[in-house]
Parts: sequence; structure tokens; C-alpha cells
Amino acid sequence: MDFPWPKTGTPLNDVLTPVPVIDEDRLTGNITRAQDYMTRHGLAFRPHIKTHKIPQVARQQTDAGAIGINCQKLSEAEVFADAGFDDILITYNILGAARLARLVALNDRVTTLRVVADSAETVAGLSAAVGQGKPLAVLVECDTGAGRCGVQSVAQAIALARHITASSGLVFDGLLTYPPVGGAAAVEAFLQAAMAQLAALGIPCPVRSSGGSPDLFSAHLVPSATEHRAGTYVYNDRSMVRAGECGPDDLAMNVLTTVVSCPTPTRAVLDAGSKALTSDLLGFKDYGIIPSLPGARIVSLSEEHAVVDLTACTVPAPAIGTQLRVVPNHTCVVTNLFDRIVFHRDGVVTRVLPVAARGAVW
Amino acid sequence: MDFPWPKTGTPLNDVLTPVPVIDEDRLTGNITRAQDYMTRHGLAFRPHIKTHKIPQVARQQTDAGAIGINCQKLSEAEVFADAGFDDILITYNILGAARLARLVALNDRVTTLRVVADSAETVAGLSAAVGQGKPLAVLVECDTGAGRCGVQSVAQAIALARHITASSGLVFDGLLTYPPVGGAAAVEAFLQAAMAQLAALGIPCPVRSSGGSPDLFSAHLVPSATEHRAGTYVYNDRSMVRAGECGPDDLAMNVLTTVVSCPTPTRAVLDAGSKALTSDLLGFKDYGIIPSLPGARIVSLSEEHAVVDLTACTVPAPAIGTQLRVVPNHTCVVTNLFDRIVFHRDGVVTRVLPVAARGAVW
Repeated sequence: MDFPWPKTGTPLNDVLTPVPVIDEDRLTGNITRAQDYMTRHGLAFRPHIKTHKIPQVARQQTDAGAIGINCQKLSEAEVFADAGFDDILITYNILGAARLARLVALNDRVTTLRVVADSAETVAGLSAAVGQGKPLAVLVECDTGAGRCGVQSVAQAIALARHITASSGLVFDGLLTYPPVGGAAAVEAFLQAAMAQLAALGIPCPVRSSGGSPDLFSAHLVPSATEHRAGTYVYNDRSMVRAGECGPDDLAMNVLTTVVSCPTPTRAVLDAGSKALTSDLLGFKDYGIIPSLPGARIVSLSEEHAVVDLTACTVPAPAIGTQLRVVPNHTCVVTNLFDRIVFHRDGVVTRVLPVAARGAVW
Repeated sequence: MDFPWPKTGTPLNDVLTPVPVIDEDRLTGNITRAQDYMTRHGLAFRPHIKTHKIPQVARQQTDAGAIGINCQKLSEAEVFADAGFDDILITYNILGAARLARLVALNDRVTTLRVVADSAETVAGLSAAVGQGKPLAVLVECDTGAGRCGVQSVAQAIALARHITASSGLVFDGLLTYPPVGGAAAVEAFLQAAMAQLAALGIPCPVRSSGGSPDLFSAHLVPSATEHRAGTYVYNDRSMVRAGECGPDDLAMNVLTTVVSCPTPTRAVLDAGSKALTSDLLGFKDYGIIPSLPGARIVSLSEEHAVVDLTACTVPAPAIGTQLRVVPNHTCVVTNLFDRIVFHRDGVVTRVLPVAARGAVW
């Protein structure tokens, strides 16, 4: 599809919808504010690229002081290695011969590559794949309350660290967790206990990596951590405002959309459905907010349409053809739906960037 | 990303996950069963391509007897016109100069192209864009209870039909609706009333288009309809089983996934998150079903992980590395997340097809 992407200098009013747009100044502000906070607290910062999936934006983050990047999938890391990034952490249990062979090839060309493991099965696969090649750095993933992946106790973390240390081709490089919101105390207690036991065993643990955007500005409450990972902060979204981590003026991403139908005085239909906003509710009861229509609610999505209930809207209903901006519930998942993202300053297009790692689920 | 897509003949066990796979025989069965039903009842069948977004699959549908295809967006229609389809209905209010210019260009090269309108604004845009060119066929979209787009009454439908008839460059070609489940009686009543009034005015109404997969095999309950549109039936999904429109043996799409972590005896984590299964719940309380793990529940998704609660699972927990098949809640939205889809017969890859219209939201 030869979609007519806007040229630099185009007013956003003339950009075809639906499309996500990023405010350059808010983007820069978000990057600077988070980096300044980390620097002030002596924490290394490792942004998660899942939110933007765009090497140029990651470069803005490392130029601002981030030590490297965090990818969730091997295929994402390949895209960013191709773009020249040389300090990459992949926070995923990588399994299977085909994928492990590609991981080893990636390790050969990236200066600092780390992966995680939470099981002996993952460690065995990594060790066998590396063979006599360049040693691979492995962090033990720890579940400190988020209830996803990760070893369940300090004892399990120590056992797996010892197993990695004893495995040929692997270097145990530390501990990693993705805590739930408000989980700082549990993370700190876990890290302190594990570090003490590792020290007693004579096993170095140079990296202690914690993460999360919804707790970004509480990262200093985990003083044993050496680095923090976060993604969403770079664009921000409705969930980050709710979390108190940003204000409305820090929302860098909007989804531009157009009113395509006004079937009743209290119903407007937009050209942004679940293929543009996604169905992610994140605990909200509707699918994003429309700042210019206070009181309006996006009550349902089909794939290409959003139905807006204007019953409680305090301003006149928008006319058919009106362009509106939606603040999405969750920015990362919106990014994954589009081949390109439009950037702007004060409503004028500055650049259009390919979402290079879109769809990189492998 | 040069992802290593599987070659024909590869066993599904060797295919990298996560990826959607389509059972060829079930696909053929679904196409045949729906077409036979429509033929038996004298209804023209116009499959909606949103479910597969793949011209080769649409060709299977027209080869089986479908009269043409239904696209939701102009950009989808462009992809399918490029692939040689010459009877296309776009069920969308198309607005804005740039998009209208492309619509006119599409009309010039497709034998039978129809669009819909539910407002004078949409009709005015279409008429102005066509100018002195090839006349464009327009259906009036009617809201018969689904609460999305569409005129709200027979009187409004008649008024808009007259307006289209009086607009240069446009041909009023009939009425269209997408009824809610169980809405057959309301649709039939609406169509009969509108057809009678149009006949009294001397306005031909050759097309009466109804639609929906969840009511597919009730299409004969709208005898005034001339054609039915449906998408999901071609692959089927969990929502279609719930609707009683198919059985478990008609589920052509599975999402192949791998167990990447077993942090506790009752928790398994899969490599298929919201980027593979989507967050679409469609009223369910979890994110798909795993037929080989009865009682297991996919209780949460992050972007790259699914957390499976095995508490009520009646078979042994799967080991790390085990490949599992998930039946998604909603097949259409899964399709939109992948660049390619793997087809198989009896677990052996038959073909890998690009999802040509993926991401076509414009």
C-alpha cells in the first residue's frame, strides 16, 4: 500500500487519519526528565524500546544518557543491533534451537548483550548454543510479586545463579525483576538477601536491574538496584496520568482520528477502532480520552470504528469530518499497529519514522 | 527482519512461535458450508476480507461461489483490486479530499465498486469527487440496532436515497445494514418498509445487504435481503463456538505458542501476549482457550507473555518448551498482528501467505 505519508511541514489537520502522532517537545521533555531523575539518584537507565520500536527514538534516549536499551524479543534486538546499538538486554527466556542460533550470532556482533533465565531448561539451552563461542551474560529473572515469569524465592535465585556459573559458555551477571506497582520494598528486600548470599558464595553480582514506567520516579526506593528499565514514559498515556507519573502536558502520543458518522445527537463514530487504539482497557471502562470533548466517552470499538457517547459531553457535538485527538489508554500497543509514526512540533509535521521493530514477536 | 518462515512440508512442531496457523481442510469446510447455505437459500454471499486480509483466501471464497468481496477500508480495497478482484463493496463513510481522490481512481479500475453513506456530508463529498467521471454506486447504511453507523429510521433512509439519486455522479444502489445478533426481524421489517416507500417513489433498490458471522446461518430469516456479508466464519474462533455457529472441529485458526516459563506448579507462561492474541475479550473472562489443557485459563496478557492459571487444569502441567495451540477469542484481530500466516494440513505446512492488507486502517 503506497499510503501518502505527510511531508515535513504539513499541518496535522491535513494528515490522513487514523494515525498516531508524537509531539517532539513533549517527547524530549519526557526523555530529559526521566534521565535527569536517574542521574540524580545514581541509577543507570535502560529504556525499553517496546513503546516506540524506533531506533531513532532510542538514539535520543541514549544521547540523553541512557546506558543502553532493553528489548523484549530477540527479533527486536536484531533490529536495534542493525541500527548500531551495542548494549542490549533481552528480558526473555529464549528457547529452541533456531532462536538460540540467532541469539549466538547476535552475541557475536553486539558488544554487551545480556539475556535472562528463570529455569534450568533455559540455562541448558543457552549454554549448549554458545558452545565454545563468545560467552553470553545471563541475569536471573526474579518474580518479586508481578506474577509473570521469574524464580519464586531468593533460594531459587541463588541456585540458578550457581547453575549459570557452572555452565560452560555463560556468565552470571546479576539479577533482574519487573516489580508490580508499589513493589519497591519487596524488590529491595529480595535484592539485599540475594546479594548477601551470593557474596558469601564468592559469586559477583554486578547488575541488579529493576523496571517499570508506572513506578519510574520511585526507582530510588530500590537502592540496591544498579539500573532501571522503563518504556511507556517516553510517550506517556492515560495509564501514566492515572499512576501520577506524568501530567496531561506530558502526553506525547495522540491518535489522530476523524468523525465519520453522527447517527444521533449523542453518538459520534470515529475512524479509529481496535486496529488503531487496541482493546487494552488497563482497568479503564472506556477506550481512551478525547481532551477536546470533555465528558465524552469512547464506549465501544469495532475494528475500524470507535463509538463515542456524547450524553455527558459539555461542549457541542463535533461535526462529521472533524479531526479529533485521542489519548490512548496504552501507548505501546498502539505503536505495534502502525508501520509509521508521524512526529510534529506545534501541530506541524517534523518527520515520519518507520516503526522498524513493529510486529517483532519472535 | 528476515524471519525464517517455514518451508512447505515442515511439521508444525518445528515452526517458530508465536504464529497463527490455519488448518486447510477446516478452512475449505468453512467456506463450502457457508456458501452452500447461501446458495440453498438464494442469497448472494459477499465475504468480508477483514478476517484473513489475504487475496488467495478471498479467491477460494469467490471460487466457491461468492459474488464478490466486502472491504472495510479503502486501502484494503486497493490491495484486493491489485489482486484482481472486480466486485468490491466498501462498507465505510469515505471522507476527505485525499481519500476521495483515491476512491475515484479505484472506481475507474474496478468493474463493480460500491460504497456506503449515512449522511448528506458523505454524499456531498462522494458526488463532488466523482465529478464527470464514472458514476459511483452508493448504498445507504442503516442502523437496525447495532448502534454504530447508519441512518436511524426508514424516513431518514428514504431521504438519503433521494438525495443520492439527485446527486450528480452517484447511483443509489440500495440499502445496507449490519444487524446485532438476533436482529433478523428488525432488519426484515426495516427493509420491507423502506422498499415499499422507494417503490412508491419509483426509486430502484436492487441491493439489500445484510451481514454478520454470529448470525450467518440465520441469514434466510431476512428474505428481503439480496446478499449477506460475513468474515469470521472463514477461520472461526471461540466467539463463533459460543454463538453456536460452528463446532470445535470447525476452528481453522490456532495460535501456536510455546511454554517459556513455569514459575510455580500452577502457573505456565506462554510466548503469546497481546501482540499475538490481542486483548479482545468479546465478553469472555480470559484470553483464549488451550484445548490440550482442559481447565487451564489464560488469565492475563502482557505484550509478549500470556499467564496461564493451571489450578483447575485436569492434565499434567506442560513442561518448558512445550508447543501449545491456543484458540483465540477473536480471529480477525489476530490476523492484523502478523505479516504472514502459516497454513497446514494435518500438522504439516502447506503454504505461508503474506497478510497483504495487514495494517490497512486508512
